[in-house]
Amino acid sequence: MRAVDIIAKKRDGEALTREEIDFFIAGYTQGTIPDYQAAAWLMAILLRGMTAREATDLTLAMAQSGQTLSLQDVAPVVADKHSTGGVGDKTTLVVAPLVAAAGLTVAKMSGRGLGFTGGTLDKLESIPGLEVNLSTGRFLEQVRRIGVAVAGQTQDLAPADGKLYALRDVTATVPSIPLIASSIMSKKIAAGAGVIVLDVKVGRGAFMKTLESARTLSQLMVEVGRGVGRQVMAVLSPMDQPLGNAVGNALEVHEAIATLHGQGPGDFRAHCLLIASYMLLLGGRTGDLEAARALAEETLSSGRALARFADLVRAQGGDERAVTDPAAVLPRAPVIAPVMAPQSGYVAQLDAGQIGLATVRLGAGRERKGEPVDLRVGFVFHKKVGDRVQEGEALFTVHAADQEHWAQAAREGLAAYAWSREPVAAPPLMYEVIE
Amino acid sequence: MRAVDIIAKKRDGEALTREEIDFFIAGYTQGTIPDYQAAAWLMAILLRGMTAREATDLTLAMAQSGQTLSLQDVAPVVADKHSTGGVGDKTTLVVAPLVAAAGLTVAKMSGRGLGFTGGTLDKLESIPGLEVNLSTGRFLEQVRRIGVAVAGQTQDLAPADGKLYALRDVTATVPSIPLIASSIMSKKIAAGAGVIVLDVKVGRGAFMKTLESARTLSQLMVEVGRGVGRQVMAVLSPMDQPLGNAVGNALEVHEAIATLHGQGPGDFRAHCLLIASYMLLLGGRTGDLEAARALAEETLSSGRALARFADLVRAQGGDERAVTDPAAVLPRAPVIAPVMAPQSGYVAQLDAGQIGLATVRLGAGRERKGEPVDLRVGFVFHKKVGDRVQEGEALFTVHAADQEHWAQAAREGLAAYAWSREPVAAPPLMYEVIE
Repeated sequence: MRAVDIIAKKRDGEALTREEIDFFIAGYTQGTIPDYQAAAWLMAILLRGMTAREATDLTLAMAQSGQTLSLQDVAPVVADKHSTGGVGDKTTLVVAPLVAAAGLTVAKMSGRGLGFTGGTLDKLESIPGLEVNLSTGRFLEQVRRIGVAVAGQTQDLAPADGKLYALRDVTATVPSIPLIASSIMSKKIAAGAGVIVLDVKVGRGAFMKTLESARTLSQLMVEVGRGVGRQVMAVLSPMDQPLGNAVGNALEVHEAIATLHGQGPGDFRAHCLLIASYMLLLGGRTGDLEAARALAEETLSSGRALARFADLVRAQGGDERAVTDPAAVLPRAPVIAPVMAPQSGYVAQLDAGQIGLATVRLGAGRERKGEPVDLRVGFVFHKKVGDRVQEGEALFTVHAADQEHWAQAAREGLAAYAWSREPVAAPPLMYEVIE
Repeated sequence: MRAVDIIAKKRDGEALTREEIDFFIAGYTQGTIPDYQAAAWLMAILLRGMTAREATDLTLAMAQSGQTLSLQDVAPVVADKHSTGGVGDKTTLVVAPLVAAAGLTVAKMSGRGLGFTGGTLDKLESIPGLEVNLSTGRFLEQVRRIGVAVAGQTQDLAPADGKLYALRDVTATVPSIPLIASSIMSKKIAAGAGVIVLDVKVGRGAFMKTLESARTLSQLMVEVGRGVGRQVMAVLSPMDQPLGNAVGNALEVHEAIATLHGQGPGDFRAHCLLIASYMLLLGGRTGDLEAARALAEETLSSGRALARFADLVRAQGGDERAVTDPAAVLPRAPVIAPVMAPQSGYVAQLDAGQIGLATVRLGAGRERKGEPVDLRVGFVFHKKVGDRVQEGEALFTVHAADQEHWAQAAREGLAAYAWSREPVAAPPLMYEVIE
C-alpha cells in the first residue's frame, strides 16, 4: 500500500477502505507518512467528502492511535459530554457535577480556549490551586471515588488527532464535516465513556454557522458513535449571542457557581438542565425525558449539584472557598466599569463571534496554542437579545487589565449590538435533538 | 499575506490574485512556505481549477523563480518545441537541425525519460562523447554559432517548477491541467524562445488520454504563452501506438539519423515535417503553411538537415561517425532477435502505453529520477496499426541485455498487439492545431 495511491483515490472521489484509512493514520502517527502527503490527503477529504463508514473508520483509527481509557471498572455506565465550542459556554462546570450528583458517573476531558471560543480548562484554573492536569490513574481514581472529574486530555489520547489537527490548522483543512466529526469523536471514543451527549452550537459564535451544517455534523457524529457501540445524542442550540451573561474565565466560573447556588441567568440555567436531562436519560437514570428533567431540576435546586462541585474542587486541589464565596478568591480585574446604552430600543443582536474575538483581545483568550490567558478579564452582559433598553442604562460591564483595554472592549462590545424599535423575540433554548 | 489564507481561498473555489500567486511561489521557492502548505494548495488547485489568468500568473511566477535566458543577442527570432511526452518520440533529433538548416534558430532544452516516456537527453547520449550538460554560456554560444543546440535544462531554470513537480509526484497532484500547463510553459518561458510549437500527444502512450483533455491543456498553454508575449501553437497528434518503428535510446537515434538521410518510417518522417513546418511558419520563415512545408521537405531531402545535425554532434563533442555510419558507433544490445506473428490478420492496436512500460522493464527507461538507463535496448516494430500480417512473419525485434529480458519483452510486446480480421485504418497523422 502506498500513501500516494490512497491520496489519489480520495482525490478521485472514491471511498477509502478501512485498511487504507488505518494504513494512512498509522503511517502518519509513526512519521512514515510525511506532513505533505497528509496535507494533500486532508484537502482531498475536505473537497471530496467521506461516507459515514469512512468517517467511522477514521474515528476508530485515530482513537486507537494511542491510549484508550477503559472505564468498565470505574462504573457500569459512564457519561461524557462535548460542546462544539461557543462564547460564554461554561455548561460543563454545572452539568458535570449535577449529573454526577443525580447518580450518573461523569468522566470529562476538556480542552483549552482557542480563537473566539473559551475552554473549560482555562476557566477551571481561575479557582486557585485547582489542578486540571491529572494523570490517567488519578483521573480514574477520582471518577471512581466521587463520580466526577473534569481534566485535560492526556497527550497520549488519540495522538493522531492532535497531530492531524495541528496540520489542518495551517493547511486550511479545518472546516470539513467528516474531519471535524472524526476529530471530536476519536477523542470521545478514546476517553472511554459509553454515553455521550454532544452540545452542538449553531450561529455567529460557533464553528457551525448554519443549522443545516450543524445538523449534518451532528448526524455524522451520532452515526459514528453508534457505529463503534456508544450511545450518542446531539442537542443543537443557538450560539448567535453569548450563552449566559458572563464571557471570560473567572467571570464564567463565578456565573456557573451562582447557577449551582440556584441563581444565574435563565438561558444558561435552562441550557444546563437541558443537557443534563439528556445525559441522565441516555445514561438510563430515568425512563423518559420528563423524569430526567425533574431529576435534574431537583438535583440542582436541592444543592446536591453544588455539593458535588465542591467535592470536585476539593479532589482537584482547588480552594474550596471558591464554592461558597467566589468573590473572595476568584481573580478580579483592576478596571471594572459598565458601558451605558447609547440609545433606547430592543436588542436585536449581540454578535457572539465579535464578542469572542473582543474577549481574546482583552486577553482572556488566545490566538495560538500555548499562549497564556488573563483569567480576570471579560464581559458581563446586562442586556441581551429581546431585552428592552433605555438610553443610559448599563448595557454591559467590561473587566479589563487597564483603561486602554477597557476602552477598546467597550467600543467592540457596543459594535456587537444591533438595535430594533420593534420588540424582538429572544432566541429559542434549542433547535432540535438528533439521536 | 498568509499562506493559509491563500490555500483557503483556492479551497473555496475563488480565483487567486497575481500578488497571492507570486507570494506563494516566492515563499515556497525560498522555503518560508513549507511542503505541507504547498501540498494542500496543489490539491485545492487540482480539485478547484484555475482560470487562464491564474495559470498565466503561476507560469510567470515559476519562470521568474530563477534564471531566465535572454536570446535577443543570439538571433532576432529563436524557436523552441516541446513534446508532452510519448513512446518512440525522437522528433527533436530531426526537427531541431532541420528547422535550423531552414534558417530559423533553435534553442532547445530537453528532459530525461521518466516512466513510460523516453527523454531526448538519454537518446542523445547514445552518441559516444556527446555532451548534453552544457553551461548556459556554452549553450548560447553554440546557438549563436551554428543556429541550434539541444541540451539539458540548467538547475537554475524555473527552480520553483522543479520543486513543485517533485512535490506533486508524491502527493497525487500531477494530473491537473493548469498545473501541467504552467509547469511546461514556465520552463519554456524561462528558456527564452519567442516561438514555441507544442507537440501534444494524445492516447494510450501519452499523459493526455483523450482528445478533449489534450485540447483543454493545449488551449490553456497557448493562452498562457500568448499572455506573456510568446507566439505559441499546439499540434495535437495521436500516440496510441509508438511514433515510428524504434523505441529505445540508441535505436531511436538510429531511426532519427536514417530519417535525416531520407529514409526512416513514413509516420515519423511525416510527423517531423509537420512540426517543422509549423515552427517555420510561426517563426516567420514563410508566409503560409504550404510554403513552410515545401521548405521543410526541401531542407530534409537536400541533406542540409543532416549536415546541421552533424554540426550539432560535432559542437557538443559527439562522435561524428554516428551521423555517417551509426551502426558502427551506436551501442548495440547483445541479444537481438525478432518475434514472429502468432496469427494472420490486420494489426488493430499496438498499445504505446504497454510498450513504454515494457521498454522501462527492458532497462531503457527509468521509474525514478536519477536511475541509469541501458542505451542499447528496446523494440523495433515491423508491423503497426493497419498493416496486414501473415502468421510467422517478423512482427517486431527485441534488443535486450540478456535472454531473460528478451523473453519477457517478447511476451509483453505480443500482449500490446490486438488483431482484426477486417482491414483497419492507420491512425491519422494529426488531429488538430490550436493557435
